[in-house]
Amino acid sequence: MLTKVNLAEKLGLIQEYWKPKIVGEINDACVKLVKVKGEFTWHHHKDEDELFLVLKGRLTIHLRDQDVHLEEGEFFVVPRGVEHMPAAAEEAHLLLLEPKTTLNTGNVQNERTAEAQWI
Amino acid sequence: MLTKVNLAEKLGLIQEYWKPKIVGEINDACVKLVKVKGEFTWHHHKDEDELFLVLKGRLTIHLRDQDVHLEEGEFFVVPRGVEHMPAAAEEAHLLLLEPKTTLNTGNVQNERTAEAQWI
Repeated sequence: MLTKVNLAEKLGLIQEYWKPKIVGEINDACVKLVKVKGEFTWHHHKDEDELFLVLKGRLTIHLRDQDVHLEEGEFFVVPRGVEHMPAAAEEAHLLLLEPKTTLNTGNVQNERTAEAQWI
Repeated sequence: MLTKVNLAEKLGLIQEYWKPKIVGEINDACVKLVKVKGEFTWHHHKDEDELFLVLKGRLTIHLRDQDVHLEEGEFFVVPRGVEHMPAAAEEAHLLLLEPKTTLNTGNVQNERTAEAQWI
């Protein structure tokens, strides 16, 4: 797929919160975009690190022993196995980087579990 | 390394053009930042896709059969094996995503070849 990707344009296609969409792939990894608001589900990814980059707004990543507060232009890598719960008081736009196999709710299966689709 | 990364802060530490610096790792991949200006070297990466995201300025990625023009907030994945030559008329700031093993000049070894360091 030899076309460039405009992040703002792709974000404009996203309607639902907490449903990551795939916008690129590179080696074994996926670049995903997601809009978030409110609190997500506590979960972990057994064998996969996960990167959160804030494109717009603010995100707090709650870990069991600390809270990581991210502003626009900041990223954090949640290492594999580490329980986390992302939360955003107001709508935030995130770029995620994670293996193709990563499911949004990790080890948890609930009503928020969603397989990422390409947009 | 359970600390967040501020992209602007890290970019402020970079002095030289075309010398990518590592700011994060996730699974087998590295997140790198680089400042560029002028033309780079034609090269390819045999087994590695490489993502270029423009954080500031504009970048043209010359391929043998097309030119890809990237503005701020746009990214492009150069697939493995595809010859490319990035160029920027004015200073541009890029986020790169590529395997830990990727060398900036790929198959070419010249005075611009530089092993990426952490900042």
